[in-house]
Amino acid sequence: MGAGQLARMTYQAAIALGVRVRVLAETADDSAAQISHDVVIGDYRDLDTLRAFAAGCDVLTFDHEHVPTEALRILAAEGVAVRPSPDALVHAQDKAVMRERLAEVGVPAPRWRLPRADDLAGDDAAAEVAEFAAEVGWPIVIKAARGGYDGKGVWIAADAAEAAKVFAGAAAAGVRLLLEERVNFTCELAVLVARSPHGQAAVYPVVRTVQVDGVCREVHAPAPGLAAETAEQAQRIALRVVEALGTTGVLAVEMFDTPAGPLVNELAMRPHNSGHWTIEGAVTSQFEQHLRAVLDLPLGAPNARAPHTVMVNVLGGEAPDMYSGYLHCMARDPALRIHMYGKDVRPGRKVGHVTAFGDDLDQVRDRALHAAAYLRGDIDG
Amino acid sequence: MGAGQLARMTYQAAIALGVRVRVLAETADDSAAQISHDVVIGDYRDLDTLRAFAAGCDVLTFDHEHVPTEALRILAAEGVAVRPSPDALVHAQDKAVMRERLAEVGVPAPRWRLPRADDLAGDDAAAEVAEFAAEVGWPIVIKAARGGYDGKGVWIAADAAEAAKVFAGAAAAGVRLLLEERVNFTCELAVLVARSPHGQAAVYPVVRTVQVDGVCREVHAPAPGLAAETAEQAQRIALRVVEALGTTGVLAVEMFDTPAGPLVNELAMRPHNSGHWTIEGAVTSQFEQHLRAVLDLPLGAPNARAPHTVMVNVLGGEAPDMYSGYLHCMARDPALRIHMYGKDVRPGRKVGHVTAFGDDLDQVRDRALHAAAYLRGDIDG
Repeated sequence: MGAGQLARMTYQAAIALGVRVRVLAETADDSAAQISHDVVIGDYRDLDTLRAFAAGCDVLTFDHEHVPTEALRILAAEGVAVRPSPDALVHAQDKAVMRERLAEVGVPAPRWRLPRADDLAGDDAAAEVAEFAAEVGWPIVIKAARGGYDGKGVWIAADAAEAAKVFAGAAAAGVRLLLEERVNFTCELAVLVARSPHGQAAVYPVVRTVQVDGVCREVHAPAPGLAAETAEQAQRIALRVVEALGTTGVLAVEMFDTPAGPLVNELAMRPHNSGHWTIEGAVTSQFEQHLRAVLDLPLGAPNARAPHTVMVNVLGGEAPDMYSGYLHCMARDPALRIHMYGKDVRPGRKVGHVTAFGDDLDQVRDRALHAAAYLRGDIDG
Repeated sequence: MGAGQLARMTYQAAIALGVRVRVLAETADDSAAQISHDVVIGDYRDLDTLRAFAAGCDVLTFDHEHVPTEALRILAAEGVAVRPSPDALVHAQDKAVMRERLAEVGVPAPRWRLPRADDLAGDDAAAEVAEFAAEVGWPIVIKAARGGYDGKGVWIAADAAEAAKVFAGAAAAGVRLLLEERVNFTCELAVLVARSPHGQAAVYPVVRTVQVDGVCREVHAPAPGLAAETAEQAQRIALRVVEALGTTGVLAVEMFDTPAGPLVNELAMRPHNSGHWTIEGAVTSQFEQHLRAVLDLPLGAPNARAPHTVMVNVLGGEAPDMYSGYLHCMARDPALRIHMYGKDVRPGRKVGHVTAFGDDLDQVRDRALHAAAYLRGDIDG
């Protein structure tokens, strides 16, 4: 369910495996709806829609985390193979649940606190914030427990006044909040790991992600200059997460690397932007891997195919027709790999990505950055 | 036009480029029709069907050579961008036209003769056969000028009596014939070359093909043990062919390698079985390359990505459900790449292919051969 670019790229992988995919889309113009043979238009929040959709499917899976947990629990109880299961998925839907569970199994994380005050706009909540900040120092990070992604639902509060403003807004909107220390990280890492229902797991090389304004801009695979020990540590953490949560399918674990080792920042229980590089950069793409996992097929080799692979997101810019950039980008760099999602261009929206691979990281990165900037319309040549 | 596995794999490539593809299929169950969003069911031999289909397309291209040349000429005259053009395509549709044109431009080929007798069942035709056989020696190869593929429409005649039988059948069916010497080749090669309307060309590494009963079974890329000089010669021949014919899109040139150098055997003016290895084995797959070429976009890099890539066709066998072989094949070889076409299994029918790549040719080949045999149902483990 879901018909964004993740479903679109999963569909490509499904074609090769001869796996038939039915897509539940919000509109006929959704990225995956444009290219899929079997599309149902409907609301993924509506139980009857979900039930009717699932009736024709062997397995139900997702390209986002917003399907209501309760609806999925009902479907699962009715015998639908929901993968990942609602009980696993809730950890990607609710950051508070995720933090509690990962703490139980000892996965390293930034320090965090769940405010217990009923009234987030009241004095008790303010006292909890003050106490937490005294422990971890200002600024602190405040997150909506549910619904946040790509920088939305995440706030940095520099002091008590800023925190109070976020809390007041959350109280008005009825949103639960989570407090986290602001980690002074060396860099951001991500580890993609797949797990199948019978328990096989496959972990991809650790990658470095570069975020700008809370949005992933670049992914370098494998993470350049990362100590082998740190990479192993990060992979072990990701494997511990999938075991602890009992996930099925692909899970992306976003981490902060720190002098004390990697700390888990966020989870995504589906193919993830940090894994787009695997289409050309790994033996098995994350999209095929997700399909294999949810279908309980043996997992594919996650090895990297090139010394360096760099993926750069193409964000919408001022150019309404990004395809006009193809002539320049393809002529300049015949080895560049372009992926466009068929989406209307809106400033800042992820409308595609480019991937370059090769032996020299700087060159590979320059190629990908140039193409992404050119497609966006930021540069002329 | 065409909705076989070639269109199916082209569709996968189109998704990445954000190129919308409309498929003209004979039945809704055709390999590409199963997975495409925009499918028209119709007869590619019918001009009105073609005209209506083309009305919504920027460019018309093919995954087979059977669309009537005359219908395409009419569409082209009406302003449809038919790529490759009917004048180029005819060389892949009609082996007699192909032989004549390639001889004009000096492309090395087996010796050949077009019988001129009006009555193929008559004495004049028999005399022509005898004269040709005296020149090149028995057995000779007899080909239908139009409509032959995968061993159909090709006969080996050991003597005058066998040739007379083929000629009598052709006379009854109204089929033109072409005589060719039977080449005592070292091995069979294929060269894939793309050309765009503005004349850019890109040539892939020369591959070795292994045919069994006139059907391609294996492709080894690049052709193992081929002298660099021979590879260059083969690539130059392929480039000369696309220039001479003015093709657009991907062209596969099948060749016999002989002590005197490569000789052109057959042409296919579209993505071709000998190029399936490029999906994982080359920087740009033949399917994306075909799209780039017919859309007049700059061509992609054709370089090989691994020292050895081997593609083996999966032919229909006794096992009706080939997907049951996935568990074994994926578990045994996580790096194997499987492509299934969604086709009903019939003995001998190409229903998929597998690709393996790596450093050691023997190992890579064994992996691919094992998987193809297992999927077919020929072996148990």
